[in-house]
Amino acid sequence: MNLILLFEDDFVKDRQRVSLRGRRHEHVLNVHRASAGDRLSVGLLNGMIGTGAVTRIDDDALEMDIVLDRDPPPPLDVTLILALPRPIVLKRILLSASSMGVKRIVLIHSRRVEKSYWNSPVLDEKKIKEQLILGLEQARDTIMPEVWLRQKFKPFVEDDLPDMIKGTLPLVAHPGTSEPCPSQVNRPVTLAIGPEGGFMPYEVEMLEAAGFRSVNIGERILRVETAVPVLLSKLF
Amino acid sequence: MNLILLFEDDFVKDRQRVSLRGRRHEHVLNVHRASAGDRLSVGLLNGMIGTGAVTRIDDDALEMDIVLDRDPPPPLDVTLILALPRPIVLKRILLSASSMGVKRIVLIHSRRVEKSYWNSPVLDEKKIKEQLILGLEQARDTIMPEVWLRQKFKPFVEDDLPDMIKGTLPLVAHPGTSEPCPSQVNRPVTLAIGPEGGFMPYEVEMLEAAGFRSVNIGERILRVETAVPVLLSKLF
Repeated sequence: MNLILLFEDDFVKDRQRVSLRGRRHEHVLNVHRASAGDRLSVGLLNGMIGTGAVTRIDDDALEMDIVLDRDPPPPLDVTLILALPRPIVLKRILLSASSMGVKRIVLIHSRRVEKSYWNSPVLDEKKIKEQLILGLEQARDTIMPEVWLRQKFKPFVEDDLPDMIKGTLPLVAHPGTSEPCPSQVNRPVTLAIGPEGGFMPYEVEMLEAAGFRSVNIGERILRVETAVPVLLSKLF
Repeated sequence: MNLILLFEDDFVKDRQRVSLRGRRHEHVLNVHRASAGDRLSVGLLNGMIGTGAVTRIDDDALEMDIVLDRDPPPPLDVTLILALPRPIVLKRILLSASSMGVKRIVLIHSRRVEKSYWNSPVLDEKKIKEQLILGLEQARDTIMPEVWLRQKFKPFVEDDLPDMIKGTLPLVAHPGTSEPCPSQVNRPVTLAIGPEGGFMPYEVEMLEAAGFRSVNIGERILRVETAVPVLLSKLF
C-alpha cells in the first residue's frame, strides 16, 4: 500500500481529518508500523493525492490530518478489451492494469472462454473494486477504473465497438499475424487481447471488419497476464 | 502448452520417435485432445523446435514422430537480478521471465526480503525448473534459463557483479530516481529490481558504486511481477 485511498465517508471533520478502521487501519498499524506524527501518502477517490499526518493510531482506529495538494499520475489513454480470463488470473490482471493506469476495462466473451467463468464471484462488482483499489494503492493513483462486462461477443462487436473505438487506434493482439505491435503511439488506443489459446479466426475477422488491426508481440506467445503489461509498456 | 518440450530420454528410436507419459501425455490427451495423425509443436531441450506427428495416443502413452528443423525464438540479452520475491510471486515471475526469453536470473537477498523466503520449497532446483519449463512451453522456446541464488547482498555485489555486468548496460529500477528507463537499448543489459518496498538507499548506493544507473518507470510504483514485463518490454 504505497498510498492510502480515502473515501468521502472516511472524513470526520470536513475535508481535514479522517478516521479509518478495518483493512487500511490494520495495514498502517502492522505493516507501516506508523505512530503519531508520521506522514503517509494518501489520496481521495477520484481526487487529488497528498499527505496524511497521523494524529492518533491505536488498536481502535487510525486518525490523520489530510492535505491533498497534487494530481494523481496521468492515466493511460487506453480501453483494454479482454476475453474473460480464468478468475484467479482476472484478479491479478485487474490489479496490474489498475496499477498501470488503465481506466476502462471491458471483459468480453469469446469462443475459448469457459462459460463457467462468467459465474465466478470474482466478477461481483465489489470483488472487482477490491482489486482495482489494490492497484490504485500500489501505484499511488486515485482514479477508479470502469469495468464493463459483455457476455455476448457478436452484439458487443456490432453494438458497442463502433462508438468505443472512435478516435482511437484499435489493435487486436494476435499471435501469428505479421504486423508487429507499434510502439509509443502517442494517441488513444483500444487494445483487444484474446483468451489463452487466442481469439478464433472468425472472431479476429469480425474485429478486423470493425476496424481493428491485428498485431503481434514477436514470436513468443505470452500468457495474458504477461501480455497486458508487455503491450501497454510498448504502446505508451 | 504451445510447445511440448522434449528431453533426451523421451526418445525411443534414435532422434525420430518419442514416447511420453505423465504431465505432457495427459495435457495432450485432455486439453489438446489430439488423435493419431495430428501434428503438434515440439522442441528439444536446449535444441531446435519442429513438429511431432502423433503415431499413437491412448490412456497409456503418447507417441510422436519428430522433425526438428527450426531455431527457437531469440533470447533476450539480459541478466535479471531480482530481490527474492514472496514464493508464490516468484513462481509466476520465473514463468513469465522464462516465457519472455530471459536466460539468466539471479535471485539475491536485500534488506526488505523476508529471510524465511529463502527456506521456501519453491527454491528447490526441481521446482524452479518446473516454472521455467512452463514458461518455455508457453513461448515455444527450448533454451533453459539459468537461475542463481545469492543469499548475501554485499558479497554478491563485490564478488559476482563486476564480472556479471561486463559489456552490459547495468540498470537498477528504483522508484523516485529522476532518470527514466531507456527504451530499445539494443545492447546487453543487466537489470536489477528490488523487493516490494524497494532496495534500501545503501543498497542502491552500493549498486551505483558498482556501476549501475538508477532508472524509474514513471510515477507509478508497480508490483515486481508487473515491473518485470514492463521493463523488459521497454528495454528490448
